[in-house]
Amino acid sequence: MKRRALLLAGGAAALPLRAQTPAFADEDLRHARTLRDAALADGQAWKLVEALTTEIGPRPAGSPADARAAAWAQAALKGLGLANVRAEAFPLRVWQRGPASAKLVAPVEQPLVMAALGNSVAGRGEAEIAWYPDLAALKADTSDRAKGRIVFIDQKTERTRDGSGYGAAVGARFGGAVEAAKRGAIALAIRSIGTDRDRIAHTGAMGYDLSQPRIPAFAVSVPDAELIARLQQRGTPLRLAFTLESKSDVDATSQNVIAEVPGTELANEIVMIGAHRDSWDLGQGAVDDGAGVAIVSAAAGLIAKAGRRPRRTIRVVLFGNEENGFDGARRYGDRYGAEPHQLVGESDFGAGRVWRFASRWRAEALPLAAQVAAELAPLGVAAGGNEGAPGPDAGVLMRRFQWPAVGLTQDGSAYFDVHHTENDTLERIDPAALQQNVACWVVVAWLAAQAPLRF
Amino acid sequence: MKRRALLLAGGAAALPLRAQTPAFADEDLRHARTLRDAALADGQAWKLVEALTTEIGPRPAGSPADARAAAWAQAALKGLGLANVRAEAFPLRVWQRGPASAKLVAPVEQPLVMAALGNSVAGRGEAEIAWYPDLAALKADTSDRAKGRIVFIDQKTERTRDGSGYGAAVGARFGGAVEAAKRGAIALAIRSIGTDRDRIAHTGAMGYDLSQPRIPAFAVSVPDAELIARLQQRGTPLRLAFTLESKSDVDATSQNVIAEVPGTELANEIVMIGAHRDSWDLGQGAVDDGAGVAIVSAAAGLIAKAGRRPRRTIRVVLFGNEENGFDGARRYGDRYGAEPHQLVGESDFGAGRVWRFASRWRAEALPLAAQVAAELAPLGVAAGGNEGAPGPDAGVLMRRFQWPAVGLTQDGSAYFDVHHTENDTLERIDPAALQQNVACWVVVAWLAAQAPLRF
Repeated sequence: MKRRALLLAGGAAALPLRAQTPAFADEDLRHARTLRDAALADGQAWKLVEALTTEIGPRPAGSPADARAAAWAQAALKGLGLANVRAEAFPLRVWQRGPASAKLVAPVEQPLVMAALGNSVAGRGEAEIAWYPDLAALKADTSDRAKGRIVFIDQKTERTRDGSGYGAAVGARFGGAVEAAKRGAIALAIRSIGTDRDRIAHTGAMGYDLSQPRIPAFAVSVPDAELIARLQQRGTPLRLAFTLESKSDVDATSQNVIAEVPGTELANEIVMIGAHRDSWDLGQGAVDDGAGVAIVSAAAGLIAKAGRRPRRTIRVVLFGNEENGFDGARRYGDRYGAEPHQLVGESDFGAGRVWRFASRWRAEALPLAAQVAAELAPLGVAAGGNEGAPGPDAGVLMRRFQWPAVGLTQDGSAYFDVHHTENDTLERIDPAALQQNVACWVVVAWLAAQAPLRF
Repeated sequence: MKRRALLLAGGAAALPLRAQTPAFADEDLRHARTLRDAALADGQAWKLVEALTTEIGPRPAGSPADARAAAWAQAALKGLGLANVRAEAFPLRVWQRGPASAKLVAPVEQPLVMAALGNSVAGRGEAEIAWYPDLAALKADTSDRAKGRIVFIDQKTERTRDGSGYGAAVGARFGGAVEAAKRGAIALAIRSIGTDRDRIAHTGAMGYDLSQPRIPAFAVSVPDAELIARLQQRGTPLRLAFTLESKSDVDATSQNVIAEVPGTELANEIVMIGAHRDSWDLGQGAVDDGAGVAIVSAAAGLIAKAGRRPRRTIRVVLFGNEENGFDGARRYGDRYGAEPHQLVGESDFGAGRVWRFASRWRAEALPLAAQVAAELAPLGVAAGGNEGAPGPDAGVLMRRFQWPAVGLTQDGSAYFDVHHTENDTLERIDPAALQQNVACWVVVAWLAAQAPLRF
């Protein structure tokens, strides 16, 4: 009965419901379980990420492969039975990698495995290393030790399930060049922000500051950083030579690719489930973020194919250029900011299993969060409170528009082994874990669309 | 009493001992245990391989780093208290790697992570791929399918403890180019002969045949081979472009570095424990064969420092150019082939624990093998019969001179993850496993030197 009353109410926010405990209709919960079970038996997400990595591969924003990926994505979303499939183009300026290399030249010549950081200016040079154990040590240095030298930051990344180790370390990548330039350094080199021990360097965005000279910035692999640390401990000066080509601010075009399961009586309210279509240039963009593209697309496809139209519109957004600028998220906000969004979320933390569900919505709707959590519990997902982090693009939008959000936290223990590296390949994805992710997203998207009130 | 009688006998082979069961002297067994325990508590091998990888790094035969490694090795062996330390130079012709790259150009452009195989001629080209699941399939092909194409062999390497998976697969690397050239191919590409799933290619020696054209040959990483296989399954033709620079037959010099614990009454009889000092150019030469260098050097050092002189001379030989020609082994044979060798063995299978001891000597001395095995058993080492494989250089010598040999088989389960790659770094070595290896070698070398008769 309550169900019927709520359904008839249409936009739940229009009614004085606060005195009642909101609840999902039984049939919506039952359908959520049906969708969940279907997801666990469905290989669609694997097929999608297999196709994206195999038929497209690396797809940095604005590249020809990025455009091919946009075309691929539209065809894939149509193939899943989704409606209103479109690519919304936007102009952007991109950074392009060129050839780069580095080596130690003293006290011993040894080649280094390295990668330019995204946005690094080009340059070449040879100088003594000014070594720092972490970014804090560099920031604390008031001497002129770095002047004329190559600053090396040996910032280590701790392996954690929730990615907090990355969060604690990534400042060295993003802000290291400014701190080094402030102290007169000619270049910045960092230990890769990664948890592996492979001879593979991790790229990723870095930034400059208008007040400081732009110096070249690159990461060396973890074993190369360990080599440098061992030589450093011997007390003799280390000299490093590097050459790095790149282009900045190249005019280009990218796209947000969008598709929908159109809603019924609340079609104007949007449940946005996103991922990003672009990738760094080094790997296949499998765990970052081919997995997310596959997960949210497959989830929406299952809802469409199950035949029951959702009340609200479920919208898949495959953002352009998450990796180096969030242009797609900004563009989406510019275009859709006025639309009421019931929920925003994004799958962009690899291909590990979801282990935590966290809402981020108003208190009145929290009983619904508990019901969602109950449907996720059989998938091994814990309830995680009301401070969910919805992922990078969705986070940009959540902060800009105060939209309700959801975080489905994946196990990121292995994510930073391959993140932003050549090792981000299909081999790193477990098909069963992918299905568990789809099962989580299908439950969340469906129930958000059916909820008796606005989150 | 038996012990004393045997000791007095001097060269045991001179006496009619066949009727007796030969046995080690109790005090020699006791000293073996003392040495074994000392090895398990000694960090010397780790220090050696740390220094070699850090202060020298990759050291392909004939390179400046190879010469530096020879100087380093002499200093290290002297530091261990060994005598008669010398480097014995020899001329050789070496292959030198140049820049190389490859990419798929159809049906999709994707970069490939690749490495030229050792000895490959230079070349460049673009052609359709003629794909074969393994070398046997290529050999069985009597069609003209490979003509004008790039043969790709997707030979997989099975992970095994004893390395047999590598043995079964490596023919594709060594002999693939000849088979491809016979069929008119313009180049050979192979799946890396490796058990990993990293975006890192495995190099290694390949060979040509005078009867066939020399075509360029390279390996792609395992994930790249998987990508090619997935595209291959889609049925559209694949095209690959490559460019590969290299130099062959460059005149150079390398060295065998030799050191001894001089024997007493049987000083002219040699217990040779070897490893190879050279490495491929891509990694640090840590597991291949910095570990072996460290293990046999530390073992001899422990014997020297313990103060009891061995009856026979224990000789450490750090061979030059094992990887691409066995020049050092041949040179050693030319120079020392006339010396009576009690035993030859080599540590060259990474840094995993020894799990099997196998003699390879005459039947009369097999009771001594049982006694050696009993001293190794507490180290987790099983007795493995009388068909021991003594390692590559020692194997060359064993076959040439019919010298008695020993195999201390290491756990190679992880060895072919990094073998001949950039990932062959110090990080892959477990110091405790290194100590267990030293403990095994110290027991074997000491007892071989003290044995009451020739093996």
